[in-house]
Amino acid sequence: MKQRYFDHIATNPLHPKVLDSMMPYFKEEFGNPLSVYDLGANAKTAIEEARGKVAKLINAKPSEIVFTASGAEANNFALKGIALAKQNEGNHILISKVEHHSVLNPARALEKQGFVVTYMPVDNYGVVDPDTVKKMITDKTILISVTTASSEIGTIEPVKEIAAIANEKNIPFHTDAVAAVGNIPIDVKALGVNLMSMSAHQFYGPKGASALYLKQGQRINPLIYGGIQEGGRRAGTENVPAIVGMGTAAEMAGNELMERYNHVKRLKDRLIKECLKIDNVHLTGHPDNRLPGHASFVVEFIEGEGMLLMLQAKGMYAASGSACTSKALKASPVLTATGISTSMSHGSMVFSLGMDNRDEDMDVLLEEFPQIVNRLREISPFSKGWDAKEGD
Amino acid sequence: MKQRYFDHIATNPLHPKVLDSMMPYFKEEFGNPLSVYDLGANAKTAIEEARGKVAKLINAKPSEIVFTASGAEANNFALKGIALAKQNEGNHILISKVEHHSVLNPARALEKQGFVVTYMPVDNYGVVDPDTVKKMITDKTILISVTTASSEIGTIEPVKEIAAIANEKNIPFHTDAVAAVGNIPIDVKALGVNLMSMSAHQFYGPKGASALYLKQGQRINPLIYGGIQEGGRRAGTENVPAIVGMGTAAEMAGNELMERYNHVKRLKDRLIKECLKIDNVHLTGHPDNRLPGHASFVVEFIEGEGMLLMLQAKGMYAASGSACTSKALKASPVLTATGISTSMSHGSMVFSLGMDNRDEDMDVLLEEFPQIVNRLREISPFSKGWDAKEGD
Repeated sequence: MKQRYFDHIATNPLHPKVLDSMMPYFKEEFGNPLSVYDLGANAKTAIEEARGKVAKLINAKPSEIVFTASGAEANNFALKGIALAKQNEGNHILISKVEHHSVLNPARALEKQGFVVTYMPVDNYGVVDPDTVKKMITDKTILISVTTASSEIGTIEPVKEIAAIANEKNIPFHTDAVAAVGNIPIDVKALGVNLMSMSAHQFYGPKGASALYLKQGQRINPLIYGGIQEGGRRAGTENVPAIVGMGTAAEMAGNELMERYNHVKRLKDRLIKECLKIDNVHLTGHPDNRLPGHASFVVEFIEGEGMLLMLQAKGMYAASGSACTSKALKASPVLTATGISTSMSHGSMVFSLGMDNRDEDMDVLLEEFPQIVNRLREISPFSKGWDAKEGD
Repeated sequence: MKQRYFDHIATNPLHPKVLDSMMPYFKEEFGNPLSVYDLGANAKTAIEEARGKVAKLINAKPSEIVFTASGAEANNFALKGIALAKQNEGNHILISKVEHHSVLNPARALEKQGFVVTYMPVDNYGVVDPDTVKKMITDKTILISVTTASSEIGTIEPVKEIAAIANEKNIPFHTDAVAAVGNIPIDVKALGVNLMSMSAHQFYGPKGASALYLKQGQRINPLIYGGIQEGGRRAGTENVPAIVGMGTAAEMAGNELMERYNHVKRLKDRLIKECLKIDNVHLTGHPDNRLPGHASFVVEFIEGEGMLLMLQAKGMYAASGSACTSKALKASPVLTATGISTSMSHGSMVFSLGMDNRDEDMDVLLEEFPQIVNRLREISPFSKGWDAKEGD
């Protein structure tokens, strides 16, 4: 059976050209970039070339890119690193209610260390109102973090407007752009952000390579202390092949950005339009201002997992909520923040499209998905009045 | 020119079988281990198989292995994670003066957060006396960390004896075994340690995969918060290919451990014996109780970098100090802890041998190295009385 992958937000297949570029660093060019001899220097050169390519994708300087092993590490580095570097100036952190777990949970950990975190509300589309940010800033605020785009609902946030408010108050502004970089045009200078997280496997690069953009002059405490790698900002022997792969993937994403954008947007627009014709299926996130390949819904009266398994039986892969919550079986805090009830949130469905998807894949999905919804509703004990019964 | 690599402590070439085992996870098996469908489940299964293999290498339970991206991350996780988890019970941390930067520097960072760190002295061989540990424990001590083996001087520490002292006082004991695991027999149960760091690229596995052994029941705060990966102990999308490679490398290291041990030890014994015949060359670290492939020296009157470059010109790769200090151009705190003067420490040479080294490589090295030393001494302004002039 042909496999049709609609879960590009969870992870992406590696582009064959990316893998090709990595291979020498698994073989003859295995040196440690800190070694002084040529074998080390070759690895160091490869890392610096990759750094330049990643920087170019977001219009940063190469020296502003710190490689990490995951988007989660970049987010933890940003939140904990700024909080600890600025703890003598204040203890207040502002984040939104639609942040990824890797922003939300370090913020919660910082609360246990004496920091005060305000979780900013969003509207029904998941959008943070810049005026809310303005109102919630106090003279103790040392960090603001709002995602560029939510992986669960696809909504793109008004990052530029929020950054302007933060800049005016001289407060570092971090944005988790893991779901965005490589998929929509991103220019850190135009946006005015101080820190930005990104991850290679979101744009056909390898797992194990991610980065934090750190605006020149931005003070931060390391998350991982040790050797002098990454200018002393992040210790640990560099994962040279993965970093090289991230560079290749960033270069390709930059070159093909609008082609990719338009490809997935066209498929996504059709998918949303058709899915919304199914009874009691609602779009989550913003109708227009969303990631180009991201179509997310709540399907009333049934649960996400049933839909995922029936889709899989037809060779199709999708998600219910974020990859990090899909196995946690909890109500998504992102969905509830947009005003969706806990019970309804269990019917979350996320289709995220990629360059491997074709019109024919949409034909099959749009043929099968309504039938799957109907079949599951027929056997669902909740199909009539679940919400009413729960009183949620 | 044939390349001869004598810097296996900096990093190792990837074993071809390890790379083979990783390849499917760069290609068709690219799923996110948290995804509920089969593509995700396959990745999850692969990770759990790798976890079992890594656990087996050190006689741990699979659930006691937490994958990280580097040895430095494992060390930071151990130190900061235990310190924060136990900060209500005390604020005193004991580490040795021969720790790697990725133990030393997080300890220093913890000092800035109010923890008190005691840096335990070592003897001229770099050995921590268990009696010193016993004496330096206070009723505020919440963590003891002593390396299993130093990457700079090769000395193997009395980990079992120190662990026994820590266990008696109910203080968590961590050991940085990055340079040891896969190279000498390690049994966490027999040693009685609570936490142990290890890294795949030290035993022919890939960069980007490492692990922290965390004894069952050992409480720790995460370093990276976010999703539910690694049982909630370490968030971030798993680097599936690298983890799979670490599993393969661990299995091979376990199967071939004594064969590898004996191979490099024989070459190393010859290398040490012959190098000590050169005038004013001294062994660093312990003469017998050291890593089997590790031969480290200080060469009086000349600097490490010159030797490295002249060796490279002959196709040979070695190190001066640790990979993390070789570019930092600082006196090694490990060497000075063993009583070596700052000026003499600049002549540090570390040859670390591996399975790719042959007797013929030793022939060439032992032919060339004394000549290199002589030539550098001829042109060195310090070759007569440097130490005396500096009064160091």
